[in-house]
Amino acid sequence: MPQKVRIALDAMGGDVGASVVIPGAAIALKKHPDSEFLLYGDSKQIDEQLAAHPALKKASRVVHTDVTVSMHDKPSQALRRGRKTSSMWLAIDAVKKGEADVAISAGNTGALMAMARFHLHTMPGIDRPAIAAVWPTARGESVVLDLGASIGGDANHLVTLSVMGSAMASVLFNIERPTVGLLNIGVEEIKGHEEIREAAEKLRAMNLPQLNYIGFVEGDGIGSGAADVIVAEGFSGNIALKAAEGTARQMADFLRGAMASSWQSKIGYLFARKAFQALRDKLDPNKSNGGVLLGLKGVVVKSHGGINAEGFASAVNVGYEMVRCDLLTKINQMINSDGGALAQTAQEAVS
Amino acid sequence: MPQKVRIALDAMGGDVGASVVIPGAAIALKKHPDSEFLLYGDSKQIDEQLAAHPALKKASRVVHTDVTVSMHDKPSQALRRGRKTSSMWLAIDAVKKGEADVAISAGNTGALMAMARFHLHTMPGIDRPAIAAVWPTARGESVVLDLGASIGGDANHLVTLSVMGSAMASVLFNIERPTVGLLNIGVEEIKGHEEIREAAEKLRAMNLPQLNYIGFVEGDGIGSGAADVIVAEGFSGNIALKAAEGTARQMADFLRGAMASSWQSKIGYLFARKAFQALRDKLDPNKSNGGVLLGLKGVVVKSHGGINAEGFASAVNVGYEMVRCDLLTKINQMINSDGGALAQTAQEAVS
Repeated sequence: MPQKVRIALDAMGGDVGASVVIPGAAIALKKHPDSEFLLYGDSKQIDEQLAAHPALKKASRVVHTDVTVSMHDKPSQALRRGRKTSSMWLAIDAVKKGEADVAISAGNTGALMAMARFHLHTMPGIDRPAIAAVWPTARGESVVLDLGASIGGDANHLVTLSVMGSAMASVLFNIERPTVGLLNIGVEEIKGHEEIREAAEKLRAMNLPQLNYIGFVEGDGIGSGAADVIVAEGFSGNIALKAAEGTARQMADFLRGAMASSWQSKIGYLFARKAFQALRDKLDPNKSNGGVLLGLKGVVVKSHGGINAEGFASAVNVGYEMVRCDLLTKINQMINSDGGALAQTAQEAVS
Repeated sequence: MPQKVRIALDAMGGDVGASVVIPGAAIALKKHPDSEFLLYGDSKQIDEQLAAHPALKKASRVVHTDVTVSMHDKPSQALRRGRKTSSMWLAIDAVKKGEADVAISAGNTGALMAMARFHLHTMPGIDRPAIAAVWPTARGESVVLDLGASIGGDANHLVTLSVMGSAMASVLFNIERPTVGLLNIGVEEIKGHEEIREAAEKLRAMNLPQLNYIGFVEGDGIGSGAADVIVAEGFSGNIALKAAEGTARQMADFLRGAMASSWQSKIGYLFARKAFQALRDKLDPNKSNGGVLLGLKGVVVKSHGGINAEGFASAVNVGYEMVRCDLLTKINQMINSDGGALAQTAQEAVS
């Protein structure tokens, strides 16, 4: 483990770029003073922002580039235009070269996935990378994956996702044998796609020491915390994530409207404002931001594009923790334990 | 259109049966006095409940049966054990025989789907039935389908779902040409399964007079009301529904906890309790209950199993409205307009 955690940032990523990324990094540095930063992007914009954050400036090195990946670039466009030159690529490249322990970007998800996969490659025994995030639940927190890195996938892919997600839950939540559920729909007999049933059988038969497979979990089981790790292929995982986000936003709007609806409710709001603040903190996407790209030979974290400095800081914190917990080693160990039985399973999936 | 709307109820369905179904029907009758009821189930239990609801008793006929479909029966079991005898079957049978205009059950979804499909058959031009529900959004309400009637399906199936959902939105919301979106994930280039892209092309090419196809909608677009009709195959539709329900429940719990966290917040709650009540009404699943089985030669409504009398009443109201709006004729017209081009499309999907 390195003395300091070395963090490479795509300073141009996200809806607003440096004006969120740099203040965000400054907040993260305060929380983890044992961090240092490589900042990739337009040096003029970066320096302007750094002027307001002297501590961060001291802990950073700025690497200038003119090229940025736009939020609207298709992955193939981004690779064609941004390879070797864009701020996103350079941050990933720093991880590839061993100059950084983690790369973080709030940029275009598809481009980030494509570049990270192209440049870092997947770990041995892993067919396709996944995006995992920490989901706040009624019971605490759960790891949910895949949130949209790839679509579909057979039973072996779901088994691999289960193992990667368990590794992440295990280091993040400090649980030896996390519970794992497969996302499915509840109607008996037509219980989901064939591959989900097959993955369930495999997980049960393998009875892995690293994870405790507990069965199918329906969409509402994610929020209730039915398992430490919830596994889905990327399409349904993304649908679940977005549907939940949409509902949370909608309810917050309803609540705001209700509180402003009469003078009594406004007074009520004044009395209860600390409670509302706590609620808002709990639900603020800025406070639980950061999807981890799993399965690559390097740690890459995706931040939401439309967040504030605090939100970006929380993505940086996720990256910091993944490095400090030695996530990659843990995944490697889990995938290649049992004489590589799992790696073989995954290999079969590829071949 | 019949003088009265004739409603067949599975009085044994749901988690508690007659003690919710009968009071629920009584509430619905108050709202729509031009209804009459056929009540199928254990006559002793039904009569006990009817004693407290003289108006409903006058508008009802009770048909006794000992056989009930359990919430845990698999569809095939339910068909084997409950065909021709169970309260669920008899309610559907009343629609088949033309004795009722709509059948409503809070029982086992899989069993209801199987029995309805087996006994009523699908409409000409429709390959598989779907479950549609009205989803409260930031903009008003949208029709969302399929919520889990069947899994997967090709582009033609998605086109058929679009047409059926539009018919429902058109009669329910009184819109001539509802907007339709296909549920998809947002990452460019890997935008969803092949069949979704193909369905989008078809819908665009057809440019139907009955619906206005507006493109892909992500999971959070459902709650924001991005389209009047949101279309997905049953697996992802069900995941979206359940994830949203789970999030709403979780947020309500957080809110309750926050309001009870201090004496200030408790006072605040007292002042704002009317606003909270309004919020609760808005989000209460009991107030927007009732999934419509679309594509069958008859109207069948599925109520949630775990609701109260008011919740069941709202499912009855949905059934009432579908009959009064002449949903079946509308779907038939839409499917078979353009010289049956759509019906043919759907037929191709089957063959």
